[in-house]
Amino acid sequence: MALTGVEVAKHNNAKDCWVIVHGRAYDVTEFLPEHPGGQKIILKYAGKDATEEFEPIHPPDTLEKYLDKSKHLGAVDLTTVVQEKAAEASPEEKERQLRIADMPMLEQCYNLLDFEAVARRVMKKTAWAYYSSAADDEITLRENHAAYHRIWFRPRILVDVEKVDFSTTMLGTNVDMPFYVTATALGKLGHIEGEVVLTRAAAKHNVIQMIPTLASCSFDEIVDAASGDQVQWLQLYVNKDRAITEKIVRHAEARGCKGLFITVDAPQLGRREKDMRSKFTDPGSNIQSGQTTDTSQGAARAISSFIDPGLSWSDIPWFKSITKMPIVLKGVQRVEDVVKAIEAGVQGVVLSNHGGRQLDFARSAIEVLAETMPVLRELGLEGRIEIFVDGGVRRATDIIKALCLGATGVGIGRPFLYAMSAYGFDGVDRAMQLLRDEMEMNMRLIGATTVADLNPAMVDVRSLYNHGATPRDNLSYEVYDPLVNPPQRQIAGGTTAKAKAKL
Amino acid sequence: MALTGVEVAKHNNAKDCWVIVHGRAYDVTEFLPEHPGGQKIILKYAGKDATEEFEPIHPPDTLEKYLDKSKHLGAVDLTTVVQEKAAEASPEEKERQLRIADMPMLEQCYNLLDFEAVARRVMKKTAWAYYSSAADDEITLRENHAAYHRIWFRPRILVDVEKVDFSTTMLGTNVDMPFYVTATALGKLGHIEGEVVLTRAAAKHNVIQMIPTLASCSFDEIVDAASGDQVQWLQLYVNKDRAITEKIVRHAEARGCKGLFITVDAPQLGRREKDMRSKFTDPGSNIQSGQTTDTSQGAARAISSFIDPGLSWSDIPWFKSITKMPIVLKGVQRVEDVVKAIEAGVQGVVLSNHGGRQLDFARSAIEVLAETMPVLRELGLEGRIEIFVDGGVRRATDIIKALCLGATGVGIGRPFLYAMSAYGFDGVDRAMQLLRDEMEMNMRLIGATTVADLNPAMVDVRSLYNHGATPRDNLSYEVYDPLVNPPQRQIAGGTTAKAKAKL
Amino acid sequence: MALTGVEVAKHNNAKDCWVIVHGRAYDVTEFLPEHPGGQKIILKYAGKDATEEFEPIHPPDTLEKYLDKSKHLGAVDLTTVVQEKAAEASPEEKERQLRIADMPMLEQCYNLLDFEAVARRVMKKTAWAYYSSAADDEITLRENHAAYHRIWFRPRILVDVEKVDFSTTMLGTNVDMPFYVTATALGKLGHIEGEVVLTRAAAKHNVIQMIPTLASCSFDEIVDAASGDQVQWLQLYVNKDRAITEKIVRHAEARGCKGLFITVDAPQLGRREKDMRSKFTDPGSNIQSGQTTDTSQGAARAISSFIDPGLSWSDIPWFKSITKMPIVLKGVQRVEDVVKAIEAGVQGVVLSNHGGRQLDFARSAIEVLAETMPVLRELGLEGRIEIFVDGGVRRATDIIKALCLGATGVGIGRPFLYAMSAYGFDGVDRAMQLLRDEMEMNMRLIGATTVADLNPAMVDVRSLYNHGATPRDNLSYEVYDPLVNPPQRQIAGGTTAKAKAKL
Amino acid sequence: MALTGVEVAKHNNAKDCWVIVHGRAYDVTEFLPEHPGGQKIILKYAGKDATEEFEPIHPPDTLEKYLDKSKHLGAVDLTTVVQEKAAEASPEEKERQLRIADMPMLEQCYNLLDFEAVARRVMKKTAWAYYSSAADDEITLRENHAAYHRIWFRPRILVDVEKVDFSTTMLGTNVDMPFYVTATALGKLGHIEGEVVLTRAAAKHNVIQMIPTLASCSFDEIVDAASGDQVQWLQLYVNKDRAITEKIVRHAEARGCKGLFITVDAPQLGRREKDMRSKFTDPGSNIQSGQTTDTSQGAARAISSFIDPGLSWSDIPWFKSITKMPIVLKGVQRVEDVVKAIEAGVQGVVLSNHGGRQLDFARSAIEVLAETMPVLRELGLEGRIEIFVDGGVRRATDIIKALCLGATGVGIGRPFLYAMSAYGFDGVDRAMQLLRDEMEMNMRLIGATTVADLNPAMVDVRSLYNHGATPRDNLSYEVYDPLVNPPQRQIAGGTTAKAKAKL
Repeated sequence: MALTGVEVAKHNNAKDCWVIVHGRAYDVTEFLPEHPGGQKIILKYAGKDATEEFEPIHPPDTLEKYLDKSKHLGAVDLTTVVQEKAAEASPEEKERQLRIADMPMLEQCYNLLDFEAVARRVMKKTAWAYYSSAADDEITLRENHAAYHRIWFRPRILVDVEKVDFSTTMLGTNVDMPFYVTATALGKLGHIEGEVVLTRAAAKHNVIQMIPTLASCSFDEIVDAASGDQVQWLQLYVNKDRAITEKIVRHAEARGCKGLFITVDAPQLGRREKDMRSKFTDPGSNIQSGQTTDTSQGAARAISSFIDPGLSWSDIPWFKSITKMPIVLKGVQRVEDVVKAIEAGVQGVVLSNHGGRQLDFARSAIEVLAETMPVLRELGLEGRIEIFVDGGVRRATDIIKALCLGATGVGIGRPFLYAMSAYGFDGVDRAMQLLRDEMEMNMRLIGATTVADLNPAMVDVRSLYNHGATPRDNLSYEVYDPLVNPPQRQIAGGTTAKAKAKL
Repeated sequence: MALTGVEVAKHNNAKDCWVIVHGRAYDVTEFLPEHPGGQKIILKYAGKDATEEFEPIHPPDTLEKYLDKSKHLGAVDLTTVVQEKAAEASPEEKERQLRIADMPMLEQCYNLLDFEAVARRVMKKTAWAYYSSAADDEITLRENHAAYHRIWFRPRILVDVEKVDFSTTMLGTNVDMPFYVTATALGKLGHIEGEVVLTRAAAKHNVIQMIPTLASCSFDEIVDAASGDQVQWLQLYVNKDRAITEKIVRHAEARGCKGLFITVDAPQLGRREKDMRSKFTDPGSNIQSGQTTDTSQGAARAISSFIDPGLSWSDIPWFKSITKMPIVLKGVQRVEDVVKAIEAGVQGVVLSNHGGRQLDFARSAIEVLAETMPVLRELGLEGRIEIFVDGGVRRATDIIKALCLGATGVGIGRPFLYAMSAYGFDGVDRAMQLLRDEMEMNMRLIGATTVADLNPAMVDVRSLYNHGATPRDNLSYEVYDPLVNPPQRQIAGGTTAKAKAKL
Repeated sequence: MALTGVEVAKHNNAKDCWVIVHGRAYDVTEFLPEHPGGQKIILKYAGKDATEEFEPIHPPDTLEKYLDKSKHLGAVDLTTVVQEKAAEASPEEKERQLRIADMPMLEQCYNLLDFEAVARRVMKKTAWAYYSSAADDEITLRENHAAYHRIWFRPRILVDVEKVDFSTTMLGTNVDMPFYVTATALGKLGHIEGEVVLTRAAAKHNVIQMIPTLASCSFDEIVDAASGDQVQWLQLYVNKDRAITEKIVRHAEARGCKGLFITVDAPQLGRREKDMRSKFTDPGSNIQSGQTTDTSQGAARAISSFIDPGLSWSDIPWFKSITKMPIVLKGVQRVEDVVKAIEAGVQGVVLSNHGGRQLDFARSAIEVLAETMPVLRELGLEGRIEIFVDGGVRRATDIIKALCLGATGVGIGRPFLYAMSAYGFDGVDRAMQLLRDEMEMNMRLIGATTVADLNPAMVDVRSLYNHGATPRDNLSYEVYDPLVNPPQRQIAGGTTAKAKAKL
Repeated sequence: MALTGVEVAKHNNAKDCWVIVHGRAYDVTEFLPEHPGGQKIILKYAGKDATEEFEPIHPPDTLEKYLDKSKHLGAVDLTTVVQEKAAEASPEEKERQLRIADMPMLEQCYNLLDFEAVARRVMKKTAWAYYSSAADDEITLRENHAAYHRIWFRPRILVDVEKVDFSTTMLGTNVDMPFYVTATALGKLGHIEGEVVLTRAAAKHNVIQMIPTLASCSFDEIVDAASGDQVQWLQLYVNKDRAITEKIVRHAEARGCKGLFITVDAPQLGRREKDMRSKFTDPGSNIQSGQTTDTSQGAARAISSFIDPGLSWSDIPWFKSITKMPIVLKGVQRVEDVVKAIEAGVQGVVLSNHGGRQLDFARSAIEVLAETMPVLRELGLEGRIEIFVDGGVRRATDIIKALCLGATGVGIGRPFLYAMSAYGFDGVDRAMQLLRDEMEMNMRLIGATTVADLNPAMVDVRSLYNHGATPRDNLSYEVYDPLVNPPQRQIAGGTTAKAKAKL
């Protein structure tokens, strides 16, 4: 017999805490101190239905998997659960709803950055903050794209470019375009369906999707959403408990994944201040003296406490022993480690700084690529490994630059999340179509008919290492109180405030 | 007997579509799917008079030339055609009319950029967007001028500069100033008379005009507008149908053109997002569900579908076989291809990136020039070919820099279009006069009395290759949501909104 | 018997001037011309109680120490002193009070720059100006932090970073974090308790505090505030009277100080225009003709006239003779002088430009460090001296960059002052905790488990010497009157002011 | 007998034109076409009193010197001259008067740029435009100061700097500070007394004044204003008529001038668009059709038509033959011409680009100096010539940088004009005092006690040649119409205009 809301509601405190999720009750009392997101957020729902808050942050099988069966209390008769009277929408939320009503038509998005502009307007502030935030001053976040702006083309002319073909091969898979959908966490923050939307778009355009460890959908949901022989890869955060890791890897291989991308740039997930600030709730002036406040660390910390900071080169042989999938190290950041990866016998590396979300002032992948390839050529190691780059790719010209410099392919993450958040499947579909249009145009304009035609002589990278044009240090810029010229006096009173400011 | 408006009006749909242009009716039903600009724009005028829309985009002989004679339905009695009641001017258009009434006097324009400022105010938004737009993020568009700012002068003093002479010779023609009017499309978007305005100004100042393939005026109209022994060149987009190309080339030579400039940087015409956005029409909230929308690709796509992307070096001998005009390749972008052009036996190249309208991150012509000349000198090829540059030239100092670095002359396009759009012939005349004044002044100040005096030791190009000062990436800049300092709270309520923003 | 206010009030002019400080009267008539801050400020309080003005600028023992005993007039019965009716708060002050009421919660400060933003809002304008101001155009002030932005990381991956330890040793003292609280003057301008707040925070986090010569608290108060075996250093401005200097040094050593930091970059204290402008008081329109005005030189000049500009290398042996404390030269600015310091046998140098407060266009300490270490290595002098840097450190990444380049530790000054000014002890405590969190995170992300792991191959300094990105020259930028395009005319009158500005 | 106003008023047109200046009438009918400033401005005063307009542009002896005696009509009885009823002040002028009433006290000016800020507020628009304007896009104008910002200090520490002495010797004259007041035209535009104000300030501070050819005061007035053995130099624009030039030179030598500075960078005076735009008068909407407009070329052209563009190296021996004064070439811009100057046997050169008023993109003097000195050292020519620099000097640090790099002294022009325009003699006096204070401070801080101590090892010029940080190209920047993100639609109507702009 189902539990009633009245019964559940009695267990509404830290000493005795039940919550309802998807129509079932759970006793989370003992779990409270272990909750990666902190106990405060759970206690807010003690004795109540927490589904709405729970949903985008956790795959549906989370409780089944991680909470001891003894704490599963069974079904709840939801008709007996008092629905919280929907709080009236805040002024901020009302404005957002108006912005949604006014949002541009999909056809008005002409490039990948346009989706970001629309997503920023229509997403919930906290969701936007989670997706868009990055480490410290977000210098690397912006450098990732800016670095492409320091590479210029040397196009060939009078090449017959009637037919251009930009299909290529990644880890043995033929793809229509030289990019893949890289792994990004918590897809349901942007769209109610989550990562499966990306699965469908990748299928339509015949590009590969990398499935994130921290997806909102469960791994199996995402694999199930694939169509036909659609190829997927697995992104892996390595768990301190290697048994769990092994289970995940074997399951992925069994379900047909064609590549294992081990994240190596995140022994601890980043502090992202924009995310933290967006989570902060001002208690207002009614603070009880002595009351402690919980400093939210943002979503990143909440979901990542299981990651093993002890992961090291010595773990690689073990990975090779448990899977036949090609192994790729995701997050390599200097040529020395690319050489080590070759020596370790892995099939690929992703030069990446995690979208600027981990170490600020990590260099852009494209700069590391330009450092790497000449060294590999000199060591006779070129072609011994597939090299991917991600971070900052927004234009087909960015992709072409990476390919000219020797990349096998590029990963694109946030732009597809933004397209999905703003327009769902149609947005991602259009984003990929726009890239296709740009690729065709720009392959022609650079004078290349196939990916193999692209080579280092087609780009000028002499300014790439020049970090003079570092993205602005916003916090530091804003707190600086600039010197001013002598102010006007207030005697005649004829100088208006504005004139005074200017004169 | 003339057709009546009533008769024409019956053929008002996609299955049976007539339109009136310049007082004659045409059956365009079968042509609809082939229209480079898409069928939607024609259907808007199905059964009606389309002259006003047709005019600036098509030379007057277009329909006679390209539509089968069987579809020419003959004259229409225009008195029987219902004139659409002129829609009341939109608020935007009213503001534009006020801006036209207030526009500065011609004498207030002191340099070429001033004309651009005025044109931006007084042109129709879509016309402005067509002229001013460029590829992707318009980085190359702006780099073209910015690159000149990285070249500094090393002037000679105590040279007798009482008499300065900046006349020179291009492809055998003596000209009064070392620039020419380069080819730009659709002149009637800016001025009702179109390209012939430029013809007259070029005649007055004894400089050469390059006639564009995509002019609003017909080729013959432009040649007819030339006076005396005025010299013109032909810019050529090569048609997939070489017979058409041959006809155009032979006709131009027969009519006296003195140079054939084959465009080699545009196998496909560029995507220009500013242009596309300006064309977008919001259907408003009354959209029928399921109704498809036509994504306008802007004017560039509309007019260019005939261009042959298969054009290659192997076509050059054929061109040499059909004309005695000097052949110049327009759009060369690296020194390797300049050397190839010499080997191919053409008379000149234009280092150009098509005004930034094709491949974004193509380097500026002036940078390619600085790369090219030392190589030619080293290979003993200097003087074997005439080298022109275009893109970004706004000041006589820009021209002098190009000449110092070895250019035969420079092409100027948009500035004259803007001068024409704002002030017609008088504008272009003044623009050329301003350049003449600047040339005289600056030749004196650099210590050169003739073009031959200008040499590489007069410029410092050490910073030219430094792309740190890349033009701002506007879209990327705008979508970035900057980190902020902690906000004030709302307790005392005394912090005004503005103060809050600042503090 | 105590003096009465009435009696004191009689001595209210330059010829006969008494003031009350902390309940005691002093005859300062003869001292007037010698007052470092000028006599005007004293005369304002002639015959009155000057305690409030006196307090933050002078250590409590100042009058006892520096004014001849004969001028100590004894206690005053404060009940007999007319309290100035508190002037109504100025509009500016009222706004400040509202800003204080609205200030963010401490938990909303996520990094060191956030404290600066809050301090700027809540500090008195003159106090803010004293702390934040720097020399001339404040270029070096900003360069100090900006320089760190030209250094990029080359992180190692797959290093076991489960345990990271960033403790280190400075001049023989073990500290928990590789920074120290450097000396900054006049702590009571920011917080009523002054420097002892910093003492307590340093104790809690086990880092060293450097005690400033120009503290608001007396030296002994600061030493007394230390807990247990807390280590402190002494910063020393060398007095023209070496006997005073010797007394100070011997006293510091006796009280347990473990390092003597001799300031060598301040033979004269800087002109700081922001500070000077904040002090300026407009006499309004009632100026008597002929009345002279006193040009305040700001707080810096007021407190520094005793410093000896004659200090030179030949004084070093004398210092070595009077103390066993390790001697460190604070303010070294080029490698030649680091070598000299080694030859002179001191134990350390601080590469520093005095927080940008002395010589504008002095290079950042981090740039001098990058210049210094390769030379020391080449000369075989590496390890012969401890090298500290200060100036511009705001992030743990800054600290790590300095350690990679060879620094023993970094000094942090203003950020702790700002944290103290905004939130008192809790602010400084949180600031240090934030640095600890950032250190842990970033040590992991760069792949280092101890300070010894950090090395020059982990950073890319190729852009460090590139001063293209010099901080904006505000005064020069503001006075420049930019060229404009031709303005609209006023005929139709339809162009609004704003449109005119933009079009 | 004196003429009457009535009589003069009859001669009020281009065929018969009299004007009154300083109480005397002149017949200028025949002179009209030769007036360097155009006839239009004279005709405005035909038959009237032109003194007010005439005054600041012409030295008082102009008419006596240049107008044939036969055209001197004698005294006018001014009581008979109808005074134009003073036009009511324009709104612009009223605002300016209010700004003057509110202007800061002199004591609030803390540096040379502050005077420029004040002058901009209180000067007449046309006067400001004449002083502040420069060539073309005013890039060189701003580069002149910006270049100093690319030079950084390498200060020495622990040098006894108790006594610092920055006196030096220029062309044999001992001066108290290493700068001189360089020649600038039309001093009365800024202050009613004109250049003699500068004479007095130079005397007070014992620095040299260079007397301009185009002064508002006559040469003799300026020499007469000198006190005691005050040293002055003569700046010379060479007249096409060498007899006039010889007369001027011999007269200057006779009157005691100690140096002859021949301007070599101005064969023709520059086009300055800010100046031209300020002069433009909108005829409004009442323009008669066909009426021609006079395009003012600004003050520069008006006063310079006599300058000889034929001046060349071959003229130098002649100058040496007519004077014993040391000869200095003012406006040298590359090392090759410095070497030539040494060969020509002159005593000095001024590296200068005429304050950015002549050739835009001429390099800064400080950059040319850094190029020059190493070459001279290599050629063994160091010390063979005195090298001055001018342009962009605003801080003592700028002066010190120039001296470190080998300059004998620096010229300062506009800053003193601005100080004079804002505050008269007191302004210039304070400006010089501020430089003295800054010199003393910064000599100490760099560790130099005399000018001889300054050397190239004290500066880091590695970034000087890096022109990435070119001053903004304002016109080009303003006319660029930036790409935007897709706009919000107008359906819900809830997005405010401002939000739309931002989102």
